[in-house]
Amino acid sequence: LLQGGKSLRGFLKPDETLEDLQRDGLFLIQKKSGFRFGVDAVLLADFARVKEGAKLIDLGTGTGILPVLLSAKTKAKEILGIEIQPDMVDMAKRSVALNKISGRVTIQEGDIKNKTAFPKASYDVVTTNPPYIKLGSGMRTSSEGKDISRHEVLCTLEDVVGLSARILSPGGQFFMVHKPERLVDIVCIMREYKIEPKLLRWVHPKPTEKPNILLIKGCKNGGTELKTMPPLYVFNEDGRYTDEVNRIYGRVNAP
Amino acid sequence: LLQGGKSLRGFLKPDETLEDLQRDGLFLIQKKSGFRFGVDAVLLADFARVKEGAKLIDLGTGTGILPVLLSAKTKAKEILGIEIQPDMVDMAKRSVALNKISGRVTIQEGDIKNKTAFPKASYDVVTTNPPYIKLGSGMRTSSEGKDISRHEVLCTLEDVVGLSARILSPGGQFFMVHKPERLVDIVCIMREYKIEPKLLRWVHPKPTEKPNILLIKGCKNGGTELKTMPPLYVFNEDGRYTDEVNRIYGRVNAP
Repeated sequence: LLQGGKSLRGFLKPDETLEDLQRDGLFLIQKKSGFRFGVDAVLLADFARVKEGAKLIDLGTGTGILPVLLSAKTKAKEILGIEIQPDMVDMAKRSVALNKISGRVTIQEGDIKNKTAFPKASYDVVTTNPPYIKLGSGMRTSSEGKDISRHEVLCTLEDVVGLSARILSPGGQFFMVHKPERLVDIVCIMREYKIEPKLLRWVHPKPTEKPNILLIKGCKNGGTELKTMPPLYVFNEDGRYTDEVNRIYGRVNAP
Repeated sequence: LLQGGKSLRGFLKPDETLEDLQRDGLFLIQKKSGFRFGVDAVLLADFARVKEGAKLIDLGTGTGILPVLLSAKTKAKEILGIEIQPDMVDMAKRSVALNKISGRVTIQEGDIKNKTAFPKASYDVVTTNPPYIKLGSGMRTSSEGKDISRHEVLCTLEDVVGLSARILSPGGQFFMVHKPERLVDIVCIMREYKIEPKLLRWVHPKPTEKPNILLIKGCKNGGTELKTMPPLYVFNEDGRYTDEVNRIYGRVNAP
Protein backbone atom coordinates (compact mmCIF):
# COMPACT_ATOMS: atom_id res chain seq x y z
CA LEU A 1 0.00 0.00 0.00
CA LEU A 2 1.12 3.53 -0.84
CA GLN A 3 0.36 6.68 1.09
CA GLY A 4 -3.31 7.44 0.70
CA GLY A 5 -4.14 3.77 0.52
CA LYS A 6 -3.42 3.26 -3.21
CA SER A 7 -2.56 -0.35 -4.01
CA LEU A 8 0.42 -1.06 -6.22
CA ARG A 9 -0.99 -4.39 -7.46
CA GLY A 10 -1.05 -4.37 -11.25
CA PHE A 11 0.60 -0.95 -11.46
CA LEU A 12 4.30 -1.59 -11.02
CA LYS A 13 6.66 -4.00 -12.84
CA PRO A 14 9.82 -5.37 -11.19
CA ASP A 15 12.19 -3.04 -13.10
CA GLU A 16 10.10 0.01 -12.30
CA THR A 17 10.03 2.51 -9.48
CA LEU A 18 7.60 5.10 -8.16
CA GLU A 19 8.59 8.75 -7.90
CA ASP A 20 6.71 10.85 -5.36
CA LEU A 21 5.94 14.15 -7.14
CA GLN A 22 5.42 16.02 -3.84
CA ARG A 23 2.17 17.48 -5.10
CA ASP A 24 -1.38 16.40 -4.32
CA GLY A 25 -0.19 12.87 -3.53
CA LEU A 26 0.82 12.25 -7.15
CA PHE A 27 3.25 9.53 -8.16
CA LEU A 28 4.96 8.69 -11.44
CA ILE A 29 6.03 5.25 -12.67
CA GLN A 30 9.53 5.16 -14.16
CA LYS A 31 12.11 2.55 -15.09
CA LYS A 32 14.82 2.08 -12.48
CA SER A 33 17.32 2.51 -15.31
CA GLY A 34 16.40 4.29 -18.53
CA PHE A 35 15.17 7.79 -19.27
CA ARG A 36 13.80 9.48 -16.15
CA PHE A 37 12.14 12.88 -16.03
CA GLY A 38 14.33 15.72 -14.95
CA VAL A 39 14.23 19.24 -13.62
CA ASP A 40 13.40 20.43 -17.15
CA ALA A 41 9.93 18.86 -17.10
CA VAL A 42 9.17 20.21 -13.64
CA LEU A 43 10.22 23.72 -14.66
CA LEU A 44 8.13 23.51 -17.83
CA ALA A 45 5.08 22.50 -15.80
CA ASP A 46 5.66 25.62 -13.69
CA PHE A 47 6.27 27.89 -16.71
CA ALA A 48 3.14 26.83 -18.61
CA ARG A 49 0.12 29.06 -18.03
CA VAL A 50 -3.09 27.16 -18.79
CA LYS A 51 -6.57 28.67 -18.64
CA GLU A 52 -9.50 26.93 -16.99
CA GLY A 53 -11.31 24.67 -19.42
CA ALA A 54 -8.39 24.52 -21.89
CA LYS A 55 -7.67 21.59 -24.17
CA LEU A 56 -4.01 20.75 -23.80
CA ILE A 57 -1.72 18.36 -25.65
CA ASP A 58 1.77 17.32 -24.54
CA LEU A 59 3.97 16.24 -27.45
CA GLY A 60 6.50 13.53 -26.62
CA THR A 61 5.12 12.99 -23.17
CA GLY A 62 7.52 10.19 -22.18
CA THR A 63 6.39 8.69 -18.89
CA GLY A 64 3.64 11.32 -18.66
CA ILE A 65 5.28 13.70 -16.21
CA LEU A 66 3.78 16.83 -17.81
CA PRO A 67 0.17 15.54 -18.01
CA VAL A 68 0.33 14.26 -14.44
CA LEU A 69 1.78 17.48 -13.01
CA LEU A 70 -0.50 19.71 -15.10
CA SER A 71 -3.58 17.79 -13.97
CA ALA A 72 -2.85 19.08 -10.48
CA LYS A 73 -1.48 22.53 -11.37
CA THR A 74 -4.16 23.63 -13.85
CA LYS A 75 -7.89 23.49 -14.46
CA ALA A 76 -7.45 22.27 -18.03
CA LYS A 77 -10.50 20.34 -19.22
CA GLU A 78 -8.64 17.76 -21.30
CA ILE A 79 -4.96 16.81 -21.20
CA LEU A 80 -3.65 14.49 -23.90
CA GLY A 81 -0.12 13.08 -23.84
CA ILE A 82 1.37 11.72 -27.09
CA GLU A 83 4.36 9.37 -27.05
CA ILE A 84 5.92 7.16 -29.71
CA GLN A 85 7.69 4.62 -27.46
CA PRO A 86 5.26 1.84 -26.44
CA ASP A 87 6.92 1.05 -23.11
CA MET A 88 6.74 4.72 -22.11
CA VAL A 89 3.08 4.88 -23.20
CA ASP A 90 2.38 1.84 -21.06
CA MET A 91 4.03 3.38 -17.99
CA ALA A 92 2.30 6.73 -18.53
CA LYS A 93 -1.12 5.04 -18.82
CA ARG A 94 -0.54 3.14 -15.59
CA SER A 95 0.55 6.37 -13.85
CA VAL A 96 -2.69 8.02 -14.96
CA ALA A 97 -4.70 5.09 -13.60
CA LEU A 98 -2.69 4.97 -10.37
CA ASN A 99 -3.31 8.68 -9.79
CA LYS A 100 -7.01 8.36 -10.64
CA ILE A 101 -6.90 11.24 -13.14
CA SER A 102 -8.15 9.39 -16.21
CA GLY A 103 -11.24 11.61 -16.30
CA ARG A 104 -9.13 14.50 -17.60
CA VAL A 105 -5.86 12.89 -18.71
CA THR A 106 -5.41 10.57 -21.68
CA ILE A 107 -2.20 9.01 -22.99
CA GLN A 108 -1.96 7.90 -26.62
CA GLU A 109 0.71 6.20 -28.65
CA GLY A 110 1.39 8.36 -31.68
CA ASP A 111 4.04 9.65 -34.09
CA ILE A 112 4.55 13.40 -34.21
CA LYS A 113 5.82 13.14 -37.79
CA ASN A 114 2.44 11.73 -38.89
CA LYS A 115 0.86 15.19 -38.94
CA THR A 116 -2.39 14.36 -40.68
CA ALA A 117 -3.29 12.00 -37.84
CA PHE A 118 -3.81 15.10 -35.66
CA PRO A 119 -6.83 17.39 -36.08
CA LYS A 120 -6.22 20.98 -37.18
CA ALA A 121 -6.69 23.98 -34.86
CA SER A 122 -8.12 21.93 -32.04
CA TYR A 123 -5.91 22.65 -28.99
CA ASP A 124 -5.56 25.73 -26.81
CA VAL A 125 -2.18 24.76 -25.40
CA VAL A 126 0.80 22.66 -26.50
CA THR A 127 3.49 21.69 -24.03
CA THR A 128 6.63 19.87 -25.10
CA ASN A 129 9.95 18.74 -23.70
CA PRO A 130 11.36 17.37 -26.94
CA PRO A 131 14.68 15.64 -27.65
CA TYR A 132 17.36 18.31 -27.34
CA ILE A 133 20.27 17.08 -29.37
CA LYS A 134 20.58 17.25 -33.14
CA LEU A 135 21.41 13.95 -34.79
CA GLY A 136 25.10 13.79 -35.50
CA SER A 137 26.07 15.81 -32.45
CA GLY A 138 26.41 14.85 -28.80
CA MET A 139 27.20 11.51 -27.32
CA ARG A 140 24.72 8.73 -28.00
CA THR A 141 23.80 6.76 -24.91
CA SER A 142 23.55 3.01 -24.80
CA SER A 143 19.90 2.49 -23.94
CA GLU A 144 17.64 2.95 -26.94
CA GLY A 145 14.89 4.60 -24.90
CA LYS A 146 17.27 7.21 -23.52
CA ASP A 147 18.54 7.85 -27.01
CA ILE A 148 15.09 8.49 -28.46
CA SER A 149 14.17 10.82 -25.61
CA ARG A 150 17.40 12.81 -25.79
CA HIS A 151 18.38 12.87 -29.48
CA GLU A 152 16.33 13.80 -32.52
CA VAL A 153 16.19 10.17 -33.64
CA LEU A 154 12.45 9.94 -34.21
CA CYS A 155 11.48 13.60 -34.45
CA THR A 156 13.20 16.93 -34.98
CA LEU A 157 12.52 20.36 -33.55
CA GLU A 158 10.87 21.24 -36.84
CA ASP A 159 8.55 18.22 -36.58
CA VAL A 160 7.44 19.33 -33.13
CA VAL A 161 6.92 23.00 -34.03
CA GLY A 162 5.31 22.13 -37.37
CA LEU A 163 2.76 19.82 -35.74
CA SER A 164 2.09 22.39 -33.01
CA ALA A 165 1.36 25.01 -35.66
CA ARG A 166 -1.17 22.65 -37.23
CA ILE A 167 -3.03 21.64 -34.10
CA LEU A 168 -3.08 24.94 -32.18
CA SER A 169 -6.13 27.18 -32.45
CA PRO A 170 -5.42 30.78 -33.51
CA GLY A 171 -4.07 32.50 -30.41
CA GLY A 172 -3.22 29.12 -28.93
CA GLN A 173 -0.14 28.91 -26.74
CA PHE A 174 2.99 26.84 -27.08
CA PHE A 175 5.27 26.11 -24.10
CA MET A 176 8.60 24.37 -24.62
CA VAL A 177 11.71 23.59 -22.60
CA HIS A 178 14.95 23.24 -24.52
CA LYS A 179 18.68 23.93 -24.49
CA PRO A 180 20.09 27.46 -24.84
CA GLU A 181 22.44 26.20 -27.58
CA ARG A 182 19.42 25.69 -29.83
CA LEU A 183 17.95 29.18 -29.36
CA VAL A 184 18.53 30.34 -32.93
CA ASP A 185 17.01 27.18 -34.42
CA ILE A 186 14.08 27.44 -32.02
CA VAL A 187 13.04 31.03 -32.64
CA CYS A 188 13.64 30.91 -36.40
CA ILE A 189 11.60 27.71 -36.81
CA MET A 190 8.84 29.04 -34.54
CA ARG A 191 8.57 32.25 -36.56
CA GLU A 192 8.63 30.29 -39.81
CA TYR A 193 5.64 28.27 -38.59
CA LYS A 194 3.86 31.38 -37.27
CA ILE A 195 4.20 30.49 -33.61
CA GLU A 196 5.67 33.83 -32.59
CA PRO A 197 8.02 33.70 -29.58
CA LYS A 198 6.47 35.84 -26.84
CA LEU A 199 8.23 35.00 -23.59
CA LEU A 200 11.65 33.66 -22.62
CA ARG A 201 12.96 32.47 -19.32
CA TRP A 202 16.57 31.45 -18.81
CA VAL A 203 17.41 28.96 -16.08
CA HIS A 204 20.90 29.20 -14.58
CA PRO A 205 22.49 26.71 -12.18
CA LYS A 206 23.68 29.74 -10.19
CA PRO A 207 23.48 33.53 -10.68
CA THR A 208 27.12 33.68 -11.77
CA GLU A 209 26.81 30.83 -14.29
CA LYS A 210 25.55 30.76 -17.85
CA PRO A 211 22.03 29.42 -18.45
CA ASN A 212 21.66 25.69 -19.14
CA ILE A 213 17.89 25.50 -19.69
CA LEU A 214 15.63 27.65 -21.87
CA LEU A 215 11.88 28.03 -21.33
CA ILE A 216 9.98 29.60 -24.23
CA LYS A 217 6.37 30.50 -24.86
CA GLY A 218 4.96 31.18 -28.31
CA CYS A 219 1.58 32.27 -29.58
CA LYS A 220 -0.01 30.92 -32.76
CA ASN A 221 -0.41 33.84 -35.18
CA GLY A 222 0.85 36.23 -32.46
CA GLY A 223 2.34 39.64 -33.13
CA THR A 224 6.09 40.30 -32.70
CA GLU A 225 6.67 41.23 -29.08
CA LEU A 226 9.17 39.24 -27.06
CA LYS A 227 9.44 39.62 -23.31
CA THR A 228 12.07 38.07 -21.08
CA MET A 229 11.34 37.11 -17.48
CA PRO A 230 13.76 37.57 -14.61
CA PRO A 231 16.12 34.57 -14.58
CA LEU A 232 15.44 31.42 -12.60
CA TYR A 233 18.41 30.32 -10.52
CA VAL A 234 18.40 26.72 -9.30
CA PHE A 235 21.01 27.20 -6.59
CA ASN A 236 22.13 30.19 -4.61
CA GLU A 237 25.84 30.95 -4.61
CA ASP A 238 26.04 29.08 -1.28
CA GLY A 239 24.85 25.86 -2.97
CA ARG A 240 21.37 25.74 -1.44
CA TYR A 241 18.24 25.58 -3.57
CA THR A 242 16.68 28.97 -4.19
CA ASP A 243 13.31 29.77 -2.67
CA GLU A 244 11.73 29.72 -6.12
CA VAL A 245 12.96 26.20 -6.92
CA ASN A 246 11.79 24.99 -3.52
CA ARG A 247 8.36 26.46 -4.29
CA ILE A 248 8.27 24.79 -7.74
CA TYR A 249 9.17 21.43 -6.21
CA GLY A 250 6.56 21.87 -3.50
CA ARG A 251 9.17 21.81 -0.76
CA VAL A 252 7.67 24.83 0.94
CA ASN A 253 4.18 26.22 1.15
CA ALA A 254 4.45 28.99 -1.41
CA PRO A 255 1.94 31.82 -1.78
CA LEU B 1 44.00 73.13 -21.08
CA LEU B 2 42.96 69.55 -20.47
CA GLN B 3 44.83 66.88 -18.59
CA GLY B 4 47.90 65.91 -20.60
CA GLY B 5 48.21 69.42 -21.96
CA LYS B 6 45.71 69.10 -24.82
CA SER B 7 44.30 72.42 -25.89
CA LEU B 8 40.60 72.74 -26.47
CA ARG B 9 41.02 75.57 -28.99
CA GLY B 10 39.21 74.62 -32.19
CA PHE B 11 37.89 71.40 -30.74
CA LEU B 12 34.84 72.34 -28.73
CA LYS B 13 31.76 74.41 -29.68
CA PRO B 14 29.72 76.35 -27.11
CA ASP B 15 26.87 73.76 -26.99
CA GLU B 16 29.30 70.86 -26.62
CA THR B 17 30.89 69.12 -23.68
CA LEU B 18 33.81 66.78 -23.13
CA GLU B 19 33.29 63.38 -21.55
CA ASP B 20 36.29 61.81 -19.82
CA LEU B 21 36.30 58.14 -20.90
CA GLN B 22 38.47 57.05 -17.93
CA ARG B 23 40.80 55.18 -20.24
CA ASP B 24 44.20 56.18 -21.54
CA GLY B 25 43.31 59.87 -21.15
CA LEU B 26 40.64 59.65 -23.86
CA PHE B 27 37.85 62.19 -24.19
CA LEU B 28 34.72 62.35 -26.31
CA ILE B 29 32.97 65.44 -27.66
CA GLN B 30 29.20 65.39 -27.23
CA LYS B 31 26.33 67.87 -27.39
CA LYS B 32 25.24 69.14 -23.98
CA SER B 33 21.70 68.18 -25.01
CA GLY B 34 21.04 65.63 -27.73
CA PHE B 35 21.97 61.98 -28.12
CA ARG B 36 24.78 61.01 -25.77
CA PHE B 37 26.52 57.66 -25.66
CA GLY B 38 25.29 55.27 -23.01
CA VAL B 39 26.27 52.19 -21.10
CA ASP B 40 25.36 50.12 -24.19
CA ALA B 41 28.27 51.45 -26.20
CA VAL B 42 30.73 50.93 -23.36
CA LEU B 43 29.54 47.33 -22.86
CA LEU B 44 29.81 46.65 -26.59
CA ALA B 45 33.39 47.92 -26.61
CA ASP B 46 34.11 45.44 -23.81
CA PHE B 47 32.24 42.57 -25.50
CA ALA B 48 33.98 42.93 -28.88
CA ARG B 49 37.02 40.71 -29.32
CA VAL B 50 39.34 42.16 -31.96
CA LYS B 51 42.54 40.51 -33.16
CA GLU B 52 45.78 42.38 -33.61
CA GLY B 53 46.03 43.88 -37.09
CA ALA B 54 42.28 43.62 -37.78
CA LYS B 55 40.36 45.95 -40.07
CA LEU B 56 37.30 47.11 -38.16
CA ILE B 57 34.25 49.13 -39.18
CA ASP B 58 31.69 50.64 -36.81
CA LEU B 59 28.29 51.13 -38.43
CA GLY B 60 26.30 54.10 -37.14
CA THR B 61 29.17 55.38 -35.05
CA GLY B 62 27.36 58.47 -33.71
CA THR B 63 29.87 60.65 -31.86
CA GLY B 64 32.51 57.96 -32.39
CA ILE B 65 32.46 56.35 -28.95
CA LEU B 66 33.18 52.84 -30.27
CA PRO B 67 36.13 53.80 -32.52
CA VAL B 68 37.65 55.93 -29.75
CA LEU B 69 37.29 53.23 -27.06
CA LEU B 70 38.41 50.43 -29.39
CA SER B 71 41.52 52.36 -30.41
CA ALA B 72 42.67 52.00 -26.81
CA LYS B 73 41.26 48.55 -26.06
CA THR B 74 42.45 46.70 -29.18
CA LYS B 75 45.38 46.43 -31.54
CA ALA B 76 43.19 46.80 -34.62
CA LYS B 77 45.15 48.19 -37.58
CA GLU B 78 42.35 50.31 -39.02
CA ILE B 79 39.14 51.50 -37.39
CA LEU B 80 36.54 53.17 -39.58
CA GLY B 81 33.40 54.77 -38.14
CA ILE B 82 30.45 55.42 -40.47
CA GLU B 83 27.71 57.89 -39.56
CA ILE B 84 24.91 59.52 -41.56
CA GLN B 85 24.28 62.61 -39.40
CA PRO B 86 26.72 65.38 -40.41
CA ASP B 87 26.84 67.06 -36.99
CA MET B 88 27.74 63.73 -35.37
CA VAL B 89 30.40 63.08 -38.02
CA ASP B 90 31.86 66.48 -37.31
CA MET B 91 32.01 65.85 -33.54
CA ALA B 92 33.46 62.36 -34.02
CA LYS B 93 36.19 63.71 -36.34
CA ARG B 94 37.14 66.36 -33.82
CA SER B 95 37.23 63.72 -31.05
CA VAL B 96 39.64 61.64 -33.15
CA ALA B 97 41.85 64.67 -33.69
CA LEU B 98 41.67 65.69 -30.04
CA ASN B 99 42.72 62.20 -28.94
CA LYS B 100 45.51 62.07 -31.56
CA ILE B 101 44.40 58.69 -32.90
CA SER B 102 43.89 59.67 -36.53
CA GLY B 103 46.67 57.29 -37.57
CA ARG B 104 44.37 54.32 -36.93
CA VAL B 105 40.89 55.82 -36.67
CA THR B 106 38.90 57.39 -39.51
CA ILE B 107 35.36 58.78 -39.41
CA GLN B 108 33.32 59.01 -42.62
CA GLU B 109 29.90 60.34 -43.44
CA GLY B 110 27.97 57.58 -45.13
CA ASP B 111 24.58 55.93 -45.56
CA ILE B 112 24.31 52.28 -44.49
CA LYS B 113 21.45 51.76 -46.95
CA ASN B 114 23.74 52.64 -49.84
CA LYS B 115 25.33 49.19 -49.82
CA THR B 116 27.25 49.36 -53.07
CA ALA B 117 29.27 52.29 -51.71
CA PHE B 118 30.98 49.78 -49.38
CA PRO B 119 33.57 47.26 -50.66
CA LYS B 120 32.70 43.56 -50.42
CA ALA B 121 34.44 41.18 -47.99
CA SER B 122 36.95 43.74 -46.80
CA TYR B 123 36.54 43.91 -43.01
CA ASP B 124 37.50 41.47 -40.25
CA VAL B 125 35.16 42.96 -37.65
CA VAL B 126 31.91 44.93 -37.64
CA THR B 127 30.72 46.65 -34.48
CA THR B 128 27.35 48.35 -34.30
CA ASN B 129 25.06 50.00 -31.78
CA PRO B 130 22.16 50.64 -34.13
CA PRO B 131 18.81 52.34 -33.54
CA TYR B 132 16.78 50.01 -31.32
CA ILE B 133 13.19 50.90 -31.91
CA LYS B 134 11.08 49.86 -34.88
CA LEU B 135 9.34 52.73 -36.67
CA GLY B 136 5.76 52.96 -35.50
CA SER B 137 6.51 51.77 -31.98
CA GLY B 138 7.87 53.58 -28.96
CA MET B 139 7.73 57.24 -28.10
CA ARG B 140 9.39 59.62 -30.54
CA THR B 141 11.60 62.18 -28.86
CA SER B 142 11.62 65.83 -29.78
CA SER B 143 15.20 66.30 -30.99
CA GLU B 144 15.76 65.00 -34.52
CA GLY B 145 19.25 63.70 -33.75
CA LYS B 146 18.01 61.65 -30.81
CA ASP B 147 15.24 60.29 -32.97
CA ILE B 148 17.57 59.11 -35.73
CA SER B 149 19.90 57.47 -33.22
CA ARG B 150 17.13 55.68 -31.32
CA HIS B 151 14.50 54.83 -33.94
CA GLU B 152 14.87 53.09 -37.26
CA VAL B 153 14.24 56.33 -39.14
CA LEU B 154 17.19 56.16 -41.49
CA CYS B 155 18.15 52.49 -41.28
CA THR B 156 16.62 49.25 -40.09
CA LEU B 157 18.12 46.23 -38.39
CA GLU B 158 18.00 44.48 -41.75
CA ASP B 159 19.96 47.31 -43.40
CA VAL B 160 22.69 46.99 -40.76
CA VAL B 161 22.93 43.19 -40.89
CA GLY B 162 22.66 43.14 -44.69
CA LEU B 163 25.52 45.60 -45.12
CA SER B 164 27.60 43.72 -42.53
CA ALA B 165 27.11 40.50 -44.50
CA ARG B 166 28.39 42.25 -47.61
CA ILE B 167 31.48 43.85 -46.12
CA LEU B 168 32.67 41.12 -43.75
CA SER B 169 35.32 38.69 -44.93
CA PRO B 170 34.41 35.00 -44.61
CA GLY B 171 34.85 34.16 -40.94
CA GLY B 172 34.64 37.83 -40.08
CA GLN B 173 33.01 38.77 -36.80
CA PHE B 174 29.97 40.89 -36.05
CA PHE B 175 29.41 42.46 -32.62
CA MET B 176 26.14 44.24 -31.85
CA VAL B 177 24.37 45.67 -28.83
CA HIS B 178 20.59 45.75 -28.96
CA LYS B 179 17.40 45.33 -26.95
CA PRO B 180 16.22 41.90 -25.70
CA GLU B 181 12.76 42.61 -27.16
CA ARG B 182 14.26 42.39 -30.65
CA LEU B 183 16.01 39.03 -30.13
CA VAL B 184 13.83 37.08 -32.56
CA ASP B 185 14.22 39.69 -35.30
CA ILE B 186 17.95 39.83 -34.65
CA VAL B 187 18.79 36.13 -34.82
CA CYS B 188 16.42 35.40 -37.72
CA ILE B 189 17.80 38.27 -39.82
CA MET B 190 21.40 37.34 -38.94
CA ARG B 191 20.84 33.74 -39.99
CA GLU B 192 19.08 34.86 -43.18
CA TYR B 193 22.16 36.91 -44.09
CA LYS B 194 24.56 34.12 -43.11
CA ILE B 195 25.98 35.88 -40.08
CA GLU B 196 25.41 32.97 -37.71
CA PRO B 197 24.82 33.97 -34.07
CA LYS B 198 27.65 32.46 -32.01
CA LEU B 199 27.63 34.16 -28.62
CA LEU B 200 25.05 35.90 -26.46
CA ARG B 201 25.45 37.93 -23.33
CA TRP B 202 22.48 39.27 -21.40
CA VAL B 203 22.91 42.39 -19.30
CA HIS B 204 20.63 42.73 -16.28
CA PRO B 205 20.25 45.85 -14.10
CA LYS B 206 20.38 43.46 -11.12
CA PRO B 207 20.54 39.66 -10.72
CA THR B 208 16.85 39.48 -9.80
CA GLU B 209 15.72 41.61 -12.77
CA LYS B 210 15.08 40.73 -16.39
CA PRO B 211 17.77 41.67 -18.92
CA ASN B 212 17.52 45.08 -20.58
CA ILE B 213 20.53 44.90 -22.92
CA LEU B 214 21.58 42.15 -25.33
CA LEU B 215 25.12 41.67 -26.61
CA ILE B 216 25.46 39.34 -29.59
CA LYS B 217 28.36 38.09 -31.67
CA GLY B 218 27.95 36.51 -35.09
CA CYS B 219 30.33 34.93 -37.54
CA LYS B 220 30.08 35.38 -41.32
CA ASN B 221 29.43 31.95 -42.84
CA GLY B 222 29.81 30.37 -39.37
CA GLY B 223 28.39 27.00 -38.38
CA THR B 224 25.42 26.72 -36.05
CA GLU B 225 26.73 26.72 -32.50
CA LEU B 226 25.40 29.27 -30.06
CA LYS B 227 27.01 29.83 -26.68
CA THR B 228 25.71 32.03 -23.90
CA MET B 229 28.04 33.77 -21.46
CA PRO B 230 27.35 34.17 -17.76
CA PRO B 231 25.13 37.24 -17.31
CA LEU B 232 26.48 40.71 -16.73
CA TYR B 233 24.83 42.48 -13.82
CA VAL B 234 25.21 46.25 -13.67
CA PHE B 235 24.27 46.62 -10.01
CA ASN B 236 24.45 44.26 -7.07
CA GLU B 237 21.26 43.78 -5.08
CA ASP B 238 22.57 46.42 -2.66
CA GLY B 239 22.58 49.04 -5.43
CA ARG B 240 26.37 49.29 -5.84
CA TYR B 241 28.05 48.74 -9.21
CA THR B 242 29.31 45.20 -9.67
CA ASP B 243 33.04 44.58 -9.84
CA GLU B 244 32.74 43.71 -13.52
CA VAL B 245 31.06 46.98 -14.44
CA ASN B 246 33.65 48.89 -12.43
CA ARG B 247 36.34 47.06 -14.38
CA ILE B 248 34.68 47.85 -17.72
CA TYR B 249 34.40 51.52 -16.81
CA GLY B 250 38.03 51.59 -15.73
CA ARG B 251 37.10 52.44 -12.14
CA VAL B 252 39.43 49.79 -10.78
CA ASN B 253 42.64 48.26 -12.05
CA ALA B 254 41.36 45.01 -13.42
CA PRO B 255 43.55 42.07 -14.44
